[in-house]
Amino acid sequence: MELGERLLQGDKKAAARMISLIENDDPKAVAILASLYQHTGKARVIGITGPPGAGKSTLVDKVVKQLRSRGATVGVIAVDPTSPFTGGSILGDRIRMSDLNLDPGVFIRSMGTRGHLGGLSKATLGAVKILDLLGMDYVLIETVGVGQSEVDIVKVADSVLMVMVPGLGDDIQAIKAGIMEIGDVFVINKADRDGADRTKMEIEMMLDFNHQEWRPPVTKAVAVKNEGIEEAVDNLEKHWEYLESTEKLAETRIRNSELEIMDLAQTALVKQLMRNSDNRNWLRGLAEKVAQREQDPYTTSRLVLQEMMKQSIKEEAHENTES
Amino acid sequence: MELGERLLQGDKKAAARMISLIENDDPKAVAILASLYQHTGKARVIGITGPPGAGKSTLVDKVVKQLRSRGATVGVIAVDPTSPFTGGSILGDRIRMSDLNLDPGVFIRSMGTRGHLGGLSKATLGAVKILDLLGMDYVLIETVGVGQSEVDIVKVADSVLMVMVPGLGDDIQAIKAGIMEIGDVFVINKADRDGADRTKMEIEMMLDFNHQEWRPPVTKAVAVKNEGIEEAVDNLEKHWEYLESTEKLAETRIRNSELEIMDLAQTALVKQLMRNSDNRNWLRGLAEKVAQREQDPYTTSRLVLQEMMKQSIKEEAHENTES
Repeated sequence: MELGERLLQGDKKAAARMISLIENDDPKAVAILASLYQHTGKARVIGITGPPGAGKSTLVDKVVKQLRSRGATVGVIAVDPTSPFTGGSILGDRIRMSDLNLDPGVFIRSMGTRGHLGGLSKATLGAVKILDLLGMDYVLIETVGVGQSEVDIVKVADSVLMVMVPGLGDDIQAIKAGIMEIGDVFVINKADRDGADRTKMEIEMMLDFNHQEWRPPVTKAVAVKNEGIEEAVDNLEKHWEYLESTEKLAETRIRNSELEIMDLAQTALVKQLMRNSDNRNWLRGLAEKVAQREQDPYTTSRLVLQEMMKQSIKEEAHENTES
Repeated sequence: MELGERLLQGDKKAAARMISLIENDDPKAVAILASLYQHTGKARVIGITGPPGAGKSTLVDKVVKQLRSRGATVGVIAVDPTSPFTGGSILGDRIRMSDLNLDPGVFIRSMGTRGHLGGLSKATLGAVKILDLLGMDYVLIETVGVGQSEVDIVKVADSVLMVMVPGLGDDIQAIKAGIMEIGDVFVINKADRDGADRTKMEIEMMLDFNHQEWRPPVTKAVAVKNEGIEEAVDNLEKHWEYLESTEKLAETRIRNSELEIMDLAQTALVKQLMRNSDNRNWLRGLAEKVAQREQDPYTTSRLVLQEMMKQSIKEEAHENTES
């Protein structure tokens, strides 16, 4: 049976295979996703992020269990900074050890952040579609960090759960500024630590500045003790109800589609240029001249752009002749 | 006198003005940088990053003072998550309050991470060139976070100082994996806290796996007490000597030039498309169809790419006619 059909019938092995193919940017897998795209959009996509040390992993485990107890199936994509030295994946190890793996209503997959020239979003968004097609009611995307890439990833979610933690010191100011905009629901994890109430208050104050229709709720949790999880999931449900009852869901998904289209277009362009070794050598030669200050990067980038155009048009002409 | 000339004569106001123009992607400023590019490459560029709460700001202050005491001039670019609510910049406030501002041999500037479609690197790299032209011996780039964008920014440095902190819990594993590759010199700040020796040992172990020519040194520091700063700066000097005594410096700068050229080309392409309101509406219409599952994002991105090409070629033809 075809990989796509097996996926639609809920075959987890087919899902795992498809994700591996999409990680390697396999054209066949892309074609399958394109042809099945009309069947996607059923899953609720939730991004979960926050600074290192916030205990996101434990919180995600508990959120998954809470969703399961409510009868939903859950897919998890853990975006994982792969070690260049060990070659292995650390979240992957954690995931393999999780008892959630024994639950047939759960599918967990970790994905590396490295090795895909501009293709992180393509692979991650591909995996979201695959778990959606597999029939998961929820797809959670977990990322470590508070950087722009992480923000970009979780942005492509219907709701974003922002996990905070007491004791980040002065950097709380900078973090708050960077994340306030994207969090729909806030949880202060490790709330049995000193300073939890202060952190909560600081975040609430920041949110009060923002006069949007949806005011993100902020609650406390101690994920290791399974405290505060129900409330957090309730808040995610409320956010979903808000999205559905307004134009917001449609608006969010249009914005996310636009981001995805542009990301795919840019990635394709670079890939087209870089897969040819003559091009790579040419670019390397240009970079040498720029590094030696023989020519400037601004003028050089225009040359590269023009070359991309020419090759892209040739390619298109070629494909039109073939088909 | 021309802005470019004033810059070369060490006029700080001209530098501040140029950075503002480059942040707004002003074509005149880009032209000035292109024409003066041959005079760049003299400053040593040091990227400083690490997880939130590591006390990078204080450490940077002390490192600047240490470099000054050795007779060097120092430019600092603090990449700053701008708040969408306050509209203000938090690191900017910190910087305005710093006593370093009174030192004529120091130039500090904070730059936002938002509002420049793919243009963060362009503005940051532009600012590095401007401070280089201003005659700064060192240019430090400070970023908050451990995300991929932050990594991309600090990558475009000759040396990267990675600031760690005890007590990150399990996330230390994930962070380590993500950052080990890019750090040339490691500092465990807040080393008077519990667990500093353990964090140091964990990082040393991880680095021992990596058999590269340069083994990054790991030292402890308490920046608020000015402890361990001299040693950290000594290690940065050693890394520089290593770079200069091998092919590594040339290699690093070629790689960085290649990254810059590609980044500029991609940004220009998107900008070209998005500055036209017909294009923006067209893209929005496509995104709506994709969001409604009427067409898939993969096929759609190819359409967008083809349109980019066509317009780019028209534009080029138009410019050739004009000149």
